[in-house]
Amino acid sequence: MAIGDELLTGQCIETNSAYLAERLGELGITVLAHWTIGDDPGDIADALGRAAQAAELVFVSGGLGPTPDDLTRQALAQAMGCPLALDEASLAHIEAFFRHRGRRVTETNRMQAMRPADAEAIANTMGTAPGISARLAKATVYCMPGVPHEMKAMFQQGIEPRLPRGDAVALRRVVHTFGMGESDIGTTLADLMRNEGDVRVGTTAKAGVISVRIVVRGAGRESAQATLDELQATVTERLGRIIFGQDDETLASAVGQLLTKRGQTLATAESCTGGLVGQLITAVGGSSTYYLGGVVAYANQAKCDILGVPAELLEKHGAVSERVAMAMASGCRQRLGSDWAVAVTGVAGPTGGTTAKPVGLVFKAVAGPDGASAGGYQFPGDREIVRLRAAHSVLNDLRLALL
Amino acid sequence: MAIGDELLTGQCIETNSAYLAERLGELGITVLAHWTIGDDPGDIADALGRAAQAAELVFVSGGLGPTPDDLTRQALAQAMGCPLALDEASLAHIEAFFRHRGRRVTETNRMQAMRPADAEAIANTMGTAPGISARLAKATVYCMPGVPHEMKAMFQQGIEPRLPRGDAVALRRVVHTFGMGESDIGTTLADLMRNEGDVRVGTTAKAGVISVRIVVRGAGRESAQATLDELQATVTERLGRIIFGQDDETLASAVGQLLTKRGQTLATAESCTGGLVGQLITAVGGSSTYYLGGVVAYANQAKCDILGVPAELLEKHGAVSERVAMAMASGCRQRLGSDWAVAVTGVAGPTGGTTAKPVGLVFKAVAGPDGASAGGYQFPGDREIVRLRAAHSVLNDLRLALL
Repeated sequence: MAIGDELLTGQCIETNSAYLAERLGELGITVLAHWTIGDDPGDIADALGRAAQAAELVFVSGGLGPTPDDLTRQALAQAMGCPLALDEASLAHIEAFFRHRGRRVTETNRMQAMRPADAEAIANTMGTAPGISARLAKATVYCMPGVPHEMKAMFQQGIEPRLPRGDAVALRRVVHTFGMGESDIGTTLADLMRNEGDVRVGTTAKAGVISVRIVVRGAGRESAQATLDELQATVTERLGRIIFGQDDETLASAVGQLLTKRGQTLATAESCTGGLVGQLITAVGGSSTYYLGGVVAYANQAKCDILGVPAELLEKHGAVSERVAMAMASGCRQRLGSDWAVAVTGVAGPTGGTTAKPVGLVFKAVAGPDGASAGGYQFPGDREIVRLRAAHSVLNDLRLALL
Repeated sequence: MAIGDELLTGQCIETNSAYLAERLGELGITVLAHWTIGDDPGDIADALGRAAQAAELVFVSGGLGPTPDDLTRQALAQAMGCPLALDEASLAHIEAFFRHRGRRVTETNRMQAMRPADAEAIANTMGTAPGISARLAKATVYCMPGVPHEMKAMFQQGIEPRLPRGDAVALRRVVHTFGMGESDIGTTLADLMRNEGDVRVGTTAKAGVISVRIVVRGAGRESAQATLDELQATVTERLGRIIFGQDDETLASAVGQLLTKRGQTLATAESCTGGLVGQLITAVGGSSTYYLGGVVAYANQAKCDILGVPAELLEKHGAVSERVAMAMASGCRQRLGSDWAVAVTGVAGPTGGTTAKPVGLVFKAVAGPDGASAGGYQFPGDREIVRLRAAHSVLNDLRLALL
């Protein structure tokens, strides 16, 4: 159950329920429904009561913040028919959190240390709002903050260890690919995607990355694991080199592993992606061992001055061209002193497109110890999607060059 | 109400409800809750029955596709207590759709032309699955496809024109701030956030950006608009300079507007953010008029070679220091020939922290025509959050310098 007017009115997309459902599925706990409720204490209390009738476990996110529109703790106390009480340990944690940042605790922050008298607080290691664990009807209710990273940390550290674990398991593996369309992958894996019995195989597409999801449910962990491994082996055999990783791995982390194995370094030269390629690479912890840095050469002057792209190349072919992409990659490799460099230049839109060079046209290049190669591609989608596809695509070019 | 196992199990994020809630809010229709239900005909029929008791209008998306796990039409017929019947017009549409693409209509596609006998079909201009409109208890139920662009087109073309339009409207404004904690804003606006009558004021926090949401419902557009404007004026007066924009505006777009007004240019020098600041700036369409580019100086060598940071400064103070941040900003401004430059250097984590320089410690600098200034901050959160907060924070420093 997610609480918040910003969710109910559609101002924000609700993502906590999907995260929780995924984790609960892995623990073999069946999810019956997700509900989103506004910041109304009566509505929240009603929903809590109904959920506690329908399920054994109720997970709530949101409405624990310090402002007057944070009403989950009051609503839970109302549903439980008990008053709110101050949780001393939570108050001490909140006071320490603010002291550490040199700020004063206000009366509204103290409110966060309140919980229904018959409930327990759950520690928040990422912020001030403690969670709440309580019995309601025949259910156990867990209330968590709405901020996703606080909710995730609290679930993993404070709630997951307390959950009942049945014999039934649901094992899940996601295999990520780049370079083949979703319908072609669907055709290649059609016999596996029939979804009979305890096995589910499906695909999801995001900015050119097609992920194949394999879920196996079963009474025993060993036989479920064997089925999962066998399915994954079949998928791997059929899709081959387009597979770049599994589960939490990304194109950037796959490239990082290959560079680490070779003991080589990387630099980036970006125009239309504006820093996105560097951001994806450095989103991987420990990327400083192989990533030296990069240049965002948005203006043509920067392409010449810092990357050494010849001005006549820009004049003759334009900034969005294979030749300039190649010169950017080679210049970047030289300038940063790296073993490898990638470059992207294109028309991200929504404006700036021409008949010859329409929105979505992107040139990418990879420069390495044995020379450079480049290519162009016409990406569909809006500015955000074109940029992300272009970034994924050049990282995949580099991955294939490193294989 | 969203239908689908892929939503219930958390494989996909559910976005249709947010879209519908936003459109309905604009029409003055109050949304009571969002529910997500799996591909189980009994669960769907139960939920439809309960929703039709609680509300006058029920909007359903998903479960109208051609595969055996698409069960919304059967569940609706079950809830209505009537059989399914073939809709001739829908069948003709489906046949034409396939003929147009040179494909044969299969038996499963014919299933999509079925609807409860006492219901009406709604045309789908973007795909094969027609929608359904039906009476259930005292409610009108509208079923739409789950694919977002088909759902949106059907809502706009086939459903919105049929909806009752009261005089009631709901107007919304979101005011974005940076630089004050959510609880302090809560204290400052406490009297406005009591949420009585037709006015709702609330806050949402994301990576240091605190957004104040004002929603006014009312019988007349004019008086609601007057109330909204008055509330926004009060919020603006109380929060002052920490407000950087409203609705779709971002810190990057606010900075862009200020630079455009001054006719000045910007460059970026990034270490721990790895390109994120550049990416945020270039996510704004038209940013090429003021953004020249930047340097991602991840390795110390790149800080010296490209940005001209003196090696002795790095040795004496370390890469994560106020002095180095300042030298990065000044060097970047010079190197790119821009009017302004911002720099970020810090420890994003999860590794690399020390007692003296813990994870989350970030130094930021702004260099401009009148010199440079820098400062440090200790950010909470994981790698992703530290990086986003640091990027937001330096953009806000620049905004304040430009004001």
